[in-house]
Parts: sequence; structure tokens; C-alpha cells
Amino acid sequence: MSSALRRLLDAIPPPDEAAAGLARCHLDQLTKPRGSLGRLEELAVGLAALAGGPPRADHPVVFVLAADHGVAAEGVSAYPQVVTAQMLDNFRRGGAAINVLARQAGARVVVADFGVLGRRPPEAGLVERRLGPGTANFTRGPAMSRDQALSGIEAGAALVGQAARVGVDLVITGEMGIGNTTAASAIVAALSGAAPAAVTGRGTGVDDATWQRKIDVIGRALAVNRPDPRDPMDVLAKVGGFEIAGLVGVVLGGAARRLPVVLDGFIAGTAALLAVALAPAARHALFAAHRSTEPGHALVLARLGLRPYLELELRLGEGTGGALFVHLARAAARLYGEMATFKSAGVSESPEPPVATAEPPREGQT
Amino acid sequence: MSSALRRLLDAIPPPDEAAAGLARCHLDQLTKPRGSLGRLEELAVGLAALAGGPPRADHPVVFVLAADHGVAAEGVSAYPQVVTAQMLDNFRRGGAAINVLARQAGARVVVADFGVLGRRPPEAGLVERRLGPGTANFTRGPAMSRDQALSGIEAGAALVGQAARVGVDLVITGEMGIGNTTAASAIVAALSGAAPAAVTGRGTGVDDATWQRKIDVIGRALAVNRPDPRDPMDVLAKVGGFEIAGLVGVVLGGAARRLPVVLDGFIAGTAALLAVALAPAARHALFAAHRSTEPGHALVLARLGLRPYLELELRLGEGTGGALFVHLARAAARLYGEMATFKSAGVSESPEPPVATAEPPREGQT
Repeated sequence: MSSALRRLLDAIPPPDEAAAGLARCHLDQLTKPRGSLGRLEELAVGLAALAGGPPRADHPVVFVLAADHGVAAEGVSAYPQVVTAQMLDNFRRGGAAINVLARQAGARVVVADFGVLGRRPPEAGLVERRLGPGTANFTRGPAMSRDQALSGIEAGAALVGQAARVGVDLVITGEMGIGNTTAASAIVAALSGAAPAAVTGRGTGVDDATWQRKIDVIGRALAVNRPDPRDPMDVLAKVGGFEIAGLVGVVLGGAARRLPVVLDGFIAGTAALLAVALAPAARHALFAAHRSTEPGHALVLARLGLRPYLELELRLGEGTGGALFVHLARAAARLYGEMATFKSAGVSESPEPPVATAEPPREGQT
Repeated sequence: MSSALRRLLDAIPPPDEAAAGLARCHLDQLTKPRGSLGRLEELAVGLAALAGGPPRADHPVVFVLAADHGVAAEGVSAYPQVVTAQMLDNFRRGGAAINVLARQAGARVVVADFGVLGRRPPEAGLVERRLGPGTANFTRGPAMSRDQALSGIEAGAALVGQAARVGVDLVITGEMGIGNTTAASAIVAALSGAAPAAVTGRGTGVDDATWQRKIDVIGRALAVNRPDPRDPMDVLAKVGGFEIAGLVGVVLGGAARRLPVVLDGFIAGTAALLAVALAPAARHALFAAHRSTEPGHALVLARLGLRPYLELELRLGEGTGGALFVHLARAAARLYGEMATFKSAGVSESPEPPVATAEPPREGQT
């Protein structure tokens, strides 16, 4: 492992348990039955443990990392490969779903080219972090070199560093890349040992024949490359993607800076699985925005021990589910900060403590 | 049935199928795989069918109807009955959870006193629609007269009428009333024939002994009053509540004005069950914001044929889940209105239609 990666992994701190305990105590003073805000309370506590103080979600950023995939040549998508570049333009012009949802959520969108096919002139509104002109077709050999995978992780972490310096307090993982559900399924199969058919879905909406081909392609990729499940960098390099490498870096960089990292769908979840394999401490910074319809996503979330907040049957990617999650994070933060307490509002508390509490308040906290 | 109620029920129109079809067609032109926005697409279509044009969720209102319940004397809540009046003050001062979430969502809050114990001087920020000083204890006879139930429905519908005249385009049902989960469970047991234990939960968080007492109380209420399951007005009057009557009116009034009616939790869902029993056409105006932890709520949603959008284990009421839903409704409306089309963005469409489509576009629509 390179020393730069080692430094990044070692920089990830444990959660602030004192801040979490104080947050639980504060929530129990607010004018509502204890625990009655359900998962929003758990979310407020998780955000507080990262912030080391009151939960915040004021300045979110969505990282939309885009790259092309050599495996697209095997005919695994319903869309031609040129759509990756076309959608990059759509993101820049603000016409894609993630642009709309980010505007609604008051989130910045950072679109980064990690290796989209076709060179383009340096353009406003696009961050250049190209690792190459798309990955190699991983049915014939590794998708990228180990050095490229490492560069992708470092570039992703650096993007978070820049955002943190301008006050971002919530990081959302987004992506675009025709063929990238095939890469994600291959990664999950390699890491978990699950059969390719169990973790392969219909991506953008492929028909039965294409779905079967996708499963065969993943089986061939694993047979040809033999990625080592105990070595996440080996799995990433052999059957991953450039934008997935970047997202691994976004997750690690966010966790190192104590920022909440919101996972969008299957691709982002797969990147998080690699990140947590590299640095288990990154786990507490993660929030699963939603559960997509990709079958591999449920397995990823189970392995990460994350319960998604939204179940909207999204399967678009781009960070769309993550942008929707901002409203829930902000709701948790505002309820925490703005609700009256029983004392301030003159509302009677329950004479006996209700049953459904998570933990009794500790003495000496208010 | 009174002629006023008859007129209200007869005013509820069927959904606009042409607008729904046009909305589906428009969604399929947007730069995303067909159907990939999942339930947000279904939501956009539902809102379009009500609006008779593009979906909107710009001006939501939360009706928080409050009343007291005679059955509270049986000791069915973890909180003293005075909390209803205290929370009414908290709502007026903006310190309750619903105030915070409504501010976040840009929603107006209308707090209405439908019969809270203790008279209070006419106050700013509070709508007076008192049907009496709390309901009677329904373990000893009917909670209210049939005339009171009817007045409550008419008052609720009138509130929506006033809101519609100032441009409200989305109605959220909220409530407050110590003891009202007991009333809601009794209504659901009466309408469905389910055993009280199957539809009774822990409300604000009661202990085992109180939970058992609540079940016994509901059993006694049904034995004493024998509400007729084929007559929703009979059920409402005998084991309902003043704020529940008001919410039946809000649902019917919203549906009559083609406004989306967002159901919050168990109490609101129970009111909707009564409303749909009175006027089945009201069903298409309903959106279930979330599934609460009250066991009766799942049964209510199943009988209404509604799938909730959020699963956050909320059990607070007040309209809190409904206010969170506003962000999803607005996301659906904005995606519909702001996303680029394949044509406008110059993005290639899938050469063959993907499998996961709901319905092929009809000829002659664009």
C-alpha cells in the first residue's frame, strides 16, 4: 500500500461518542414523546457524532464523477457508450435529474471527468481528473492498473478536501458511466463471493438477453482476472471503474474530515464497500440515502450494516437519491435546533418514562 | 344523510386520465432511463391527474386539528390530558415539531381547535371550530352526536375551501389530541372487524399495563356502542373524535377541489378510511406520506390501497410525516418541469425500448 493511501486511511477518526450522548439527551428534552421522531432522531445523533456538536446539513455538495467502461463493448447496457459524454454536457448545462434535485436541495454540484471517452477542451463547470480514455475491457484483463486505482482514490479524496475548505458540511456521492452497474456487480461478486446472477440487475433497463449477457460477462471477468477478495485495491483495479475509484476516495476523504458521506445507489454503495474494506473506521460516516432496485444494492447495504432512509425504487444514479436525502438530514438538524423543550414551552412531561426509549439520559447532562 | 354532506360527496370528481396519460408521456421524454425515477414518476403522474396539468406542490398547507377525548379518563395515554391544550400553545408559538418541518417545507400551518378542554380567549393564530369541550368517554356511550360528527366534517371541508381560495395546492392532514390513538384504533376495529389487540399500539409510548388497558377500553367501547360498520357516520360519532371528524372533512373537501391530500399517520389514515367509505372517489386524491409504528396504520393503508413514501418509524402525528413528504412532491414536480428532454439535450435514446416501462406512449402525444 502506498504511503499516501496509508496516511489517508490513518486519518479517519472514530465517532465522537460524547457528542452523540449529548445529542440523545437533548432530543429527549424536546416537546414530543421520546423517540417519536423515529429514524430522524437516529440521524440527528449520527450527524452530531460527526460534527462533534449540533447536527448540521446546511452546505451539501454532490460529486458527480463520470467515466467510461471498456466492458461496454460487450453490449451490457441499453444505451450507447456515447451517452456518458452526452450526459456530461447535460450535467454542465443543468438539465439532468441531479441538477434539478440539487437546486431543490440547495446543494452544489461538482461534475468531474475521471475518464470519459473523447477528449474535450477544458471547459467551465467541469473538473478534469482523467485517469485515461475509459477503462480497458475487463473481460480480457484488468480494467486499470493498480497505480491508476490509487490515483483515482487520491483524486476523489482531494475533491472532498477542496470542498471542506469552502465550508461544505455534507458530501453526496454521485456517478455516471455507461456500463458501470456491470463493474459494480463484478466488484460485489468478487468481494462477497456471491454468484454474479445474484448481484446483477437491469441497470438502465436492459432486456432478458442483455441481462444474461451481463451475467456471463461478469463471470468471464472474474475467471480471467481472479481478483483477490482480501485485497480491495486488487478488486478495484481489475474489475472496477475510474469513477468508482474516485468515489472510494470521496468516501475516505469525507470520513477523514468527519463529514457525513451520503451514499446514493448501487455504484456508490459498492465504492463504500471497498472504502470500508480499506478502512473500517469510515463506516460511521456513511448514510444510505435509499435502496435502489438493483439486486446487488441490498447485499451491499447489508454488508455495510446500513438501513436506507428512502425506498423510492430509484435506479438512476447521478446522486439523485442522495440529493433527496438532504431534506431528511436538514429536517433532523432543524428539529434538533429549533424545537421547544418541555421546560421552555411549559408542556407537562410524561409522569413515568415511556417504554420505547433507546437509552436513559445520563446524569450531569441537560 | 344530510343534504350538505350529500353535496360534498357528490362534488368529488374522478381523476383526469388524459392529464395522467400526458404526464406519463412527458416523463418518458426526459434524460433518464424510462421509469428510473421510480415512485417519484408515479407521484408526478398522480399529482398531474389531480391538477389537470403539470404537477405542482408550491403552496402546501398543514391543517393541525386539535381536540380532547373523554376516553383519556380511562388512563390510556402516557401523558396527562392537559398536554393537548399545552401543545396548542406550543403550535401557536412555533415550537413544535410540525412548526419546524412546515417552516423547512415552506408550508403554512393552520391550527384549529375542534374541542380542546378549557375555554380560551379568541387568540391570534388559532382557528375556533369547537364542537364541544372534548368528546364524551365512549366506554359509557357515544363520543358525540351524529350532528356533531356532521358539523365537524363540514367545518373541516370549509377550512380547505378557504385555503383553496388563497391558492393552496397541497393539503396535509395533522392532528393533536391526548387519547386519539385509542379513538383511531376503535374506529379501525369497528370498520374492519379486526380484534382491538391487532390494531392497538403504544401511542405516545405507553407501558405494557397501559397498552392492555387500552385494548380493554376499545373492547368495551365497541360492546357498549355497537357501531354499524356499514355506516361510517355511526362509527365516527360513537367511537371517533372531534379532530377526526374535522379530518374526514379535510379529506373530502380536498378531493372535491382536486387537491392532493397528504395523509400523515395513523389518525389521519383512519379519517381517510372513513372519508373513502363515504365517497370512494376521494381515494385518488390521497397520498400516504409515511408508515408509522402504530400497528393499525399498516391495516389502514392496506385497506386504502396506499403505499407510503417514507418509512421513518415516526409516531408523533401533528402532520410531521406529511410535511416531510412535501419535499418528495416538490421533487416530482420539479423533475417533471425542469429536466431536459433527450431531444433538447442531444442525448441518444436507448435503441430498443427498455423492459421496465409501465405503459407504451400513446400515439398522437408528445
